[in-house]
Amino acid sequence: MSAPKGPSLFQCIIGLKDIFQAHAGADKKLNKTELKEMLKGELSQTGDDAMVSQMMQTLDVDRDGLLDFSEFLLFVVGMACAFNGQTFQR
Amino acid sequence: MSAPKGPSLFQCIIGLKDIFQAHAGADKKLNKTELKEMLKGELSQTGDDAMVSQMMQTLDVDRDGLLDFSEFLLFVVGMACAFNGQTFQR
Repeated sequence: MSAPKGPSLFQCIIGLKDIFQAHAGADKKLNKTELKEMLKGELSQTGDDAMVSQMMQTLDVDRDGLLDFSEFLLFVVGMACAFNGQTFQR
Repeated sequence: MSAPKGPSLFQCIIGLKDIFQAHAGADKKLNKTELKEMLKGELSQTGDDAMVSQMMQTLDVDRDGLLDFSEFLLFVVGMACAFNGQTFQR
């Protein structure tokens, strides 16, 4: 099996942690503004507030109005499944 | 927020898909041998067969003896949470 030329699995996993921590700030959670900034900075997604609110609503499992790392990973898993041609049921 | 110097979120997500597809082969699932090879190639983890069997047992939600992409992502989420200093409950 030839290894793909992108980041290694280790780099991907550490990358997810570092990206979340860079955007989440001191409280270690993403609020709507931070989520919007991350989407723009990381995925060039300039979603409007309604889209960001919808995302927060979908991902915010404990309903505290913020995304912790596990909830952020739900987003990552959903995106990865979409890119892999699958739908993802939480 | 200064963007971390590692891969972008987009590169991480695509990287996870590419790494899984490179190791999973034509059936798009990881068997024990492919899982063992991936751990060795991607994470320099030369786990013995017992450890690989234990991992398969934990991650193989649909009990078909193989890991599909969603089940592989469970492994990624568990590792990411561990690196983030959290435990992960499935």
